[in-house]
Amino acid sequence: MTRLTEQAQGVYVIAVTPFKPDGALDLDSTDRMVDFYLEQGATGLTALGMMGEAPKLTAQESLAVVERILARIDGRVPLVVGVSAPGFAQMAELATKVMEAGAGGVMIAPPGSLKTDDQIVTYYKQAAEFLGDIPFVLQDFPLVTNVQVPVSVIARIVNEVPTCVCLKHEDWPGLEKITALRAEGTLDRRISILCGNGGLFLPEEMARGADGAMTGFCYPEMMRDVVRLMQDGQSDRARDLFDAYLPLARYEQQPGLGLAVRKYVLAKRGVIASDTIRRPGAGLTPAAKAEVDAMLTRQENRLKELN
Amino acid sequence: MTRLTEQAQGVYVIAVTPFKPDGALDLDSTDRMVDFYLEQGATGLTALGMMGEAPKLTAQESLAVVERILARIDGRVPLVVGVSAPGFAQMAELATKVMEAGAGGVMIAPPGSLKTDDQIVTYYKQAAEFLGDIPFVLQDFPLVTNVQVPVSVIARIVNEVPTCVCLKHEDWPGLEKITALRAEGTLDRRISILCGNGGLFLPEEMARGADGAMTGFCYPEMMRDVVRLMQDGQSDRARDLFDAYLPLARYEQQPGLGLAVRKYVLAKRGVIASDTIRRPGAGLTPAAKAEVDAMLTRQENRLKELN
Amino acid sequence: MTRLTEQAQGVYVIAVTPFKPDGALDLDSTDRMVDFYLEQGATGLTALGMMGEAPKLTAQESLAVVERILARIDGRVPLVVGVSAPGFAQMAELATKVMEAGAGGVMIAPPGSLKTDDQIVTYYKQAAEFLGDIPFVLQDFPLVTNVQVPVSVIARIVNEVPTCVCLKHEDWPGLEKITALRAEGTLDRRISILCGNGGLFLPEEMARGADGAMTGFCYPEMMRDVVRLMQDGQSDRARDLFDAYLPLARYEQQPGLGLAVRKYVLAKRGVIASDTIRRPGAGLTPAAKAEVDAMLTRQENRLKELN
Amino acid sequence: MTRLTEQAQGVYVIAVTPFKPDGALDLDSTDRMVDFYLEQGATGLTALGMMGEAPKLTAQESLAVVERILARIDGRVPLVVGVSAPGFAQMAELATKVMEAGAGGVMIAPPGSLKTDDQIVTYYKQAAEFLGDIPFVLQDFPLVTNVQVPVSVIARIVNEVPTCVCLKHEDWPGLEKITALRAEGTLDRRISILCGNGGLFLPEEMARGADGAMTGFCYPEMMRDVVRLMQDGQSDRARDLFDAYLPLARYEQQPGLGLAVRKYVLAKRGVIASDTIRRPGAGLTPAAKAEVDAMLTRQENRLKELN
Repeated sequence: MTRLTEQAQGVYVIAVTPFKPDGALDLDSTDRMVDFYLEQGATGLTALGMMGEAPKLTAQESLAVVERILARIDGRVPLVVGVSAPGFAQMAELATKVMEAGAGGVMIAPPGSLKTDDQIVTYYKQAAEFLGDIPFVLQDFPLVTNVQVPVSVIARIVNEVPTCVCLKHEDWPGLEKITALRAEGTLDRRISILCGNGGLFLPEEMARGADGAMTGFCYPEMMRDVVRLMQDGQSDRARDLFDAYLPLARYEQQPGLGLAVRKYVLAKRGVIASDTIRRPGAGLTPAAKAEVDAMLTRQENRLKELN
Repeated sequence: MTRLTEQAQGVYVIAVTPFKPDGALDLDSTDRMVDFYLEQGATGLTALGMMGEAPKLTAQESLAVVERILARIDGRVPLVVGVSAPGFAQMAELATKVMEAGAGGVMIAPPGSLKTDDQIVTYYKQAAEFLGDIPFVLQDFPLVTNVQVPVSVIARIVNEVPTCVCLKHEDWPGLEKITALRAEGTLDRRISILCGNGGLFLPEEMARGADGAMTGFCYPEMMRDVVRLMQDGQSDRARDLFDAYLPLARYEQQPGLGLAVRKYVLAKRGVIASDTIRRPGAGLTPAAKAEVDAMLTRQENRLKELN
Repeated sequence: MTRLTEQAQGVYVIAVTPFKPDGALDLDSTDRMVDFYLEQGATGLTALGMMGEAPKLTAQESLAVVERILARIDGRVPLVVGVSAPGFAQMAELATKVMEAGAGGVMIAPPGSLKTDDQIVTYYKQAAEFLGDIPFVLQDFPLVTNVQVPVSVIARIVNEVPTCVCLKHEDWPGLEKITALRAEGTLDRRISILCGNGGLFLPEEMARGADGAMTGFCYPEMMRDVVRLMQDGQSDRARDLFDAYLPLARYEQQPGLGLAVRKYVLAKRGVIASDTIRRPGAGLTPAAKAEVDAMLTRQENRLKELN
Repeated sequence: MTRLTEQAQGVYVIAVTPFKPDGALDLDSTDRMVDFYLEQGATGLTALGMMGEAPKLTAQESLAVVERILARIDGRVPLVVGVSAPGFAQMAELATKVMEAGAGGVMIAPPGSLKTDDQIVTYYKQAAEFLGDIPFVLQDFPLVTNVQVPVSVIARIVNEVPTCVCLKHEDWPGLEKITALRAEGTLDRRISILCGNGGLFLPEEMARGADGAMTGFCYPEMMRDVVRLMQDGQSDRARDLFDAYLPLARYEQQPGLGLAVRKYVLAKRGVIASDTIRRPGAGLTPAAKAEVDAMLTRQENRLKELN
């Protein structure tokens, strides 16, 4: 087991959940996907995230997917598992099982019923009590959760809950938040900040103080290179690369549709066998596939120009 | 097994889930609760509803509660089980298990992501496909689900999905909806309409054409009598009774707080051993308990006056 | 001019805006309505509230209504005017005009875009800067505004903004909020707390420390008597009266529909000439009118029994 | 007056409202802005849109801005004016005034209270009754309005309300919507479709059948060229240009922050004198300004490469 810590950096790829055309789990594709992500430079993986179709899996399937991924990773990088659930009993049960299976930490998004600052802090404190010493990622994704988590609340959670080791940052806009969190005196200790939103603001996020990305853009190599180049101070080179992928990143970032784009590209790249999405949910229309195909061609050409 | 049908009427009590003070399931209290509900005239029970703290149970606990209730009911009345879930795989798995255990039907609330008329209809059609021949209750509770289901959409679901046999009506305001659903030509077939909202509009709902109540007000005998008296045309007598319980019904109908009131009264009545609520969630403050106590005294006095 | 202060107590009736059947302003009915409210014991009035159809009036009409009401009040009680607006320029313009015309204060609800504690505090501080020394009511009505204002935020506003003199309390549930606000040390100074929600919890609110009601229930005399009796410690007599009106209060509290009920009863009582509601918005169906009529008869009978 | 028709195409720039540093209207900058937009190829302008800070203007100021813009346009292109308001009386009053002043049409976004298909259709039918023969744009912007308007509802509005001549399309994702609206048989007549979202999907939107853009990206020349090139079938050239501006377009599309970016760039380009934003609302931090500056430099370089 490789444990998630405050030193997490690089690219934690949010893994999709591969299905066969009939909707059954495709565990062979899961293996290939893990290999692919690691080859492309992933420093960690995240399973059962919102983009992993977690809510469409039965409890048994969720565990089966996690165990398969863990077996394939074989301790090389940490696996974070999304355990958000309406109640703490369910959350703790899943968290305990996946940690026993070898996961490195879990991720928790705030339920939409939380409104005030105190409610959010209390929620994470109670969750942490249920989780014991399991390290967790605070997922800050207001567009989907409908919960606005201000810097002062993140600070209270980080300062009062030692098992909160990482922020999955995907507020939008969110750049000032990174700056505020990295400012002297905001937090009592430095935690990892990994950014989401499909990587759409990755160069700026790195410049503001992020440690990397935790998102599932279908070209993880872009994220790996941008993170590395920004860390090395090669901002212009990082942006050249980033800009080449930006038309696709923008297209993949369409809510709801994004997962279909992601699976379509991963299937096209030979990573997963089928781009099947479980219902409710649908795949790309022929028109959308043609748009993606055109973007991939242009992207390839632009990358050649850059090399 | 007693199957839920379009003829459902009377009072389907939404059962609470009794816990011990330490948060563990209290199955002895569950037995007593079933006995109590049936003695008070329940014509059916509903488990794992929103007020049953379903989301706070693990999958195993959910099933344990359902099985215990079914054993105690012993086929005398139908049990409806809430199976709302973010994905169809989870929903179908739970539904199949509880039906195998002897439940009479399931209940499905629309997920908050549904916005347009067509999205709602499609959701229920897909759910019904996953459920096969399991009869289900459409739960229409916009205050909580955030999904507005117009009469025309209910009609499309009823007309196109034969396994939709009952509407749990708790739109607010919702009286015109009952009238519209009962109007000649709205639906191709008559389904059962059982009303929620803690019984707060029960006399009017019955007069508009409802078949009874499906809610958990802590004095089921009120609902039993109001339903019966309204069916018998004794509207004034029904309202006299109803008005005596109204201060408490109003108080119990406070969102979030209602369950604590309900459990407090049920414990006070000796039905369940403890009024414990699982976290997140909290019990009544001493001030609130005093308010309820005062209401119960006045309620008792008023009922004596009426007899 | 009678200025709104922290000593406000009793019943501030939220005035409806009377229209003629063709939708034009009915200023004669406005006069009669003011007389009626004062005769029934109003200690203040509130115009252009959410239930006053304010958003359906043009800027000119809003001012005309306020001026007419002020002329009729003739300095006997304070008039509070709702000035909630998406921007401060509009808000300050209307507030300045109505104060010049003789209003006693204004009321401000938080816009739905506010999410975090700090955002709410900042909003009220900025609003207060625009309003200068105009006293204002903080309207706390999450069911409609979608903004949850915790006790700690109310305290920060009260403590930092001296012109905040009153809380229109209509959180639901909200009783613990009153208790917390009245607890030693929560606020640096005592402000007025007037409760809304159609008076549905008025006896409990008074017992918790409220100073009265600010809502538009169509029988202001009920609110006057309940406030007075609770202040005099005659809790049982207060509740007897309250319970007699409760079936109607409950019915009037239906969102959206409530205003139609209110205008229907006020028209029936001869206060306003027509129960017309401006579009979008609709009046009562014949079935609903019959329900209200039946409730009024029962209410009258019950009141006779009590005297 | 130049009237808005179903033939509207090209680029309707959503105009900002220029303020002086003290928050007062800056009408000289307004003149310069109109000149700039027309020089950059605008085929129409839109005032008092959501990005025009309309809700922060008093009624008088709104009219002053519209009149100043109209005087400067001097009949060369149509001006569309946003008239969304909570009530029809306000909406009709503003619409009548701006049309008398020479506007070409108005724009109406659905209020957030609308939920069901029928509610949306009814709202637009009633609005159209109040507006008489004034042509209007249906603004479809769910991210902000929270109202999901399906294709079938747009079709009902277009088919039943002849004065609906244009759709401001900014659903997200929204490409399939354009395809569906342009499909044979969906609409009884062809209306104009102009796309929003800061132009972030403009090439794809044009390919799907849009007639142009109605949005305020701070480089209108990009939108002009992309629209023209796509209409001429020069898709690759269009995308080359588009991609050069995409990093900035993506950055400007951040909710809330976007207007500050837009005004900052317009001020930098010498179009408006100050990037002041009225409260509530704030300008860019120094870090954000540096980010924009860096993007502008890269954008300029890339555009040189392309020429």
